[in-house]
Amino acid sequence: MPDTVAPNLVAAVSEARQWQRLMEMGELGGFRDADGHWGVNRACLTDNDRKSRRLLIRWAAEAGLTASIDQLGNLFLRHEGTDPTLAPVLTGSHMDSQPAGGRFDGIWGVIAGLEAVQALREAGVSTKRPIEVVAWTNEEGGRYAPGCMGSMAYAGYRPPETWDAVLDKEGIPFGQALAEHLKSEADIPRRPLGVVEGTAPFAYVEAHIEQGPTLESQDADIGIVTGIQGSRWFLVEITGKSDHAGTTPVGLRKDAVQDMVRAINALNTLMHDPTDTLRFTVASIEVLPNSSNSVAQTVRFTIDLRHPDNSILQPRGNAIEGVVQSAMRYCTAKVIERFHATPTVFHPMVPNAVEAAARAQGLRAIRLPSGAFHDAQFMHPLCPTGMIFVPCRGGVSHHPSEYSEPSELAAGARVLAQVLNDLANS
Amino acid sequence: MPDTVAPNLVAAVSEARQWQRLMEMGELGGFRDADGHWGVNRACLTDNDRKSRRLLIRWAAEAGLTASIDQLGNLFLRHEGTDPTLAPVLTGSHMDSQPAGGRFDGIWGVIAGLEAVQALREAGVSTKRPIEVVAWTNEEGGRYAPGCMGSMAYAGYRPPETWDAVLDKEGIPFGQALAEHLKSEADIPRRPLGVVEGTAPFAYVEAHIEQGPTLESQDADIGIVTGIQGSRWFLVEITGKSDHAGTTPVGLRKDAVQDMVRAINALNTLMHDPTDTLRFTVASIEVLPNSSNSVAQTVRFTIDLRHPDNSILQPRGNAIEGVVQSAMRYCTAKVIERFHATPTVFHPMVPNAVEAAARAQGLRAIRLPSGAFHDAQFMHPLCPTGMIFVPCRGGVSHHPSEYSEPSELAAGARVLAQVLNDLANS
Repeated sequence: MPDTVAPNLVAAVSEARQWQRLMEMGELGGFRDADGHWGVNRACLTDNDRKSRRLLIRWAAEAGLTASIDQLGNLFLRHEGTDPTLAPVLTGSHMDSQPAGGRFDGIWGVIAGLEAVQALREAGVSTKRPIEVVAWTNEEGGRYAPGCMGSMAYAGYRPPETWDAVLDKEGIPFGQALAEHLKSEADIPRRPLGVVEGTAPFAYVEAHIEQGPTLESQDADIGIVTGIQGSRWFLVEITGKSDHAGTTPVGLRKDAVQDMVRAINALNTLMHDPTDTLRFTVASIEVLPNSSNSVAQTVRFTIDLRHPDNSILQPRGNAIEGVVQSAMRYCTAKVIERFHATPTVFHPMVPNAVEAAARAQGLRAIRLPSGAFHDAQFMHPLCPTGMIFVPCRGGVSHHPSEYSEPSELAAGARVLAQVLNDLANS
Repeated sequence: MPDTVAPNLVAAVSEARQWQRLMEMGELGGFRDADGHWGVNRACLTDNDRKSRRLLIRWAAEAGLTASIDQLGNLFLRHEGTDPTLAPVLTGSHMDSQPAGGRFDGIWGVIAGLEAVQALREAGVSTKRPIEVVAWTNEEGGRYAPGCMGSMAYAGYRPPETWDAVLDKEGIPFGQALAEHLKSEADIPRRPLGVVEGTAPFAYVEAHIEQGPTLESQDADIGIVTGIQGSRWFLVEITGKSDHAGTTPVGLRKDAVQDMVRAINALNTLMHDPTDTLRFTVASIEVLPNSSNSVAQTVRFTIDLRHPDNSILQPRGNAIEGVVQSAMRYCTAKVIERFHATPTVFHPMVPNAVEAAARAQGLRAIRLPSGAFHDAQFMHPLCPTGMIFVPCRGGVSHHPSEYSEPSELAAGARVLAQVLNDLANS
């Protein structure tokens, strides 16, 4: 890898254009919260998702890139290489958001990919390999769980029809939402899903806000991501019996809320970690019938467990079912694992290219694992993969107050431009 | 009170007609649950509520009663007395149900009132006093909290506009739903709300399924209700901060779900009662944003606390706010009391009349307090008040499996008929 800056290329990255595009995207699904922060609610396969994709396609077309989509709705914007037969370098992220998310998570990686490729073209830098900017379908998993459906299907990790019957909160199956979406994009050329002969990427690079406090606290400009911690998601359903809250003695009840509290108490003990590395979260609870004077018949709650070390992630995750069952006093419980991703350690090629580019541009870069999961996780088995992190204020993401400075995002896009140039010419 | 059976009157009560009417009412908002039980979801001021009221008015008109409504939508069906200037005897209950309720709670008291009055008329028994069958608006509080709005406003316990701004889950204000409802009943004569000069009832008698296991377990036919335990309802709102579930260290979170679990643990300790007389229920929980991988920012949960002894109800209820506040580790909490009814002990006149009628008819009757609250609670300060309970299977109510035998309900209606006859001639 060349350890020198690419001066025309770096200068061609426009901090203002990138910021303007992010703000424009933030209008789609945007809202102002009670504290005055500008949040985004852009669930996958909604009208706002479609509008954001159309906007991206227009900008990409103006920059000379050609769009295509696959059967999962993954969107590709191709910059042609001087040798179109070579394996492309892939960069990008996702455009969907959490229900009350911010303006940077995911969407910046897509906009930064376009900015970097546009800078290459405007600087007159040609690349041997094609470069494709990708926007993966449903990374967040907020509307349809699990997340990363687009990259999982692309990588062959799951067959594309796996999630057709998954319902959103309105009862619309994923398969139906996807079919409607593809119909609305019938004018965009289709490409086969995933890797068919000769199309495996040469490398995958994903730019993303850190979503954690490490870069900010260590005053670093760039995170060289070494891997991604593992995640296991569970759904727990507790079934009791609904009774009149005024007449039924507490000792005769099968109160699903009370057994949920017992289960969470027991899980808190199981998940205790003095180093505060393990992430254990119960963040979604549904109670039926959810009437204040009818004892709860059913409670469903989610568990999100993450750890970078597989030797901790596996036994703790495996113990969940037994701990929940032991905590039941009056009700019965079912525990379903909905998502399982083991910790990832990236091939050194992309992290080394990121480190070289940051050093060449005089930026302070540190190595760290990703606390959040990303589409990169599913690309990792397919080709050398890596990520570029930039700081975000207070480590906050998945919230309207999520924020990165225009200059921080521009630094990330400049490093990405040089990394793409290096990889696409090697 | 005459301690003799009224033979024509008792024979005129029709078990079959009463049962047929209950089953017909059960079609309005009816559904079959997963276990094959026929449940009812008939929230107040909905189309199904209106249909059930129209059906009742038709039956009552066929029996010779005249309908009128007041500004809260309370519906009155009047049997004229031989002296129309005398204070009437009032009997009835409510027609709305819990979201997943049964076919007997509330509606039976209204149908039994009609059955008893119709039996009086068909048996040719005239009464000195008028008798009015009443259906109170919104007893359950399932759509609009608190319950008993109709009887509270009638009794002057709260001004009628008190709840105008209360929203249902769709955001429709109670005032708007009520105005639409009254418009749909514009053809029904209006009466003034509550007690205006000369209209205070002579007595109020409410027939109801027990909603508890006592009558069944003691093999009794009739419950002579001596009073109603007190109720205090609270809403707790816990506010934390939403963060990414994968990246935010547990120690740096303000996780509203975890502080809710701490609060419920502390409340369970506060509410512990070795005699199992106290009823403490958390049955409704709302989490925001309720996405499995975003730490919960806000949790709202309800508390339903009941006890027949005011010297226990008051201090336990008063301690809730302090216990919740002490349980907060990372979040802040607000505790709002939404409903407060002290325990009620009925005037002996109606309970004695119920006891006499049951004895005269050879039925086994026992005295007991009501575990559930009822509209009778708010009538108690206005006039001598009482209730007649009949057994319900397993003590179950507020659930599709709620059930009483046709013969049990007929026995209750026969007692009611005799009680109305006795009171309306005294």
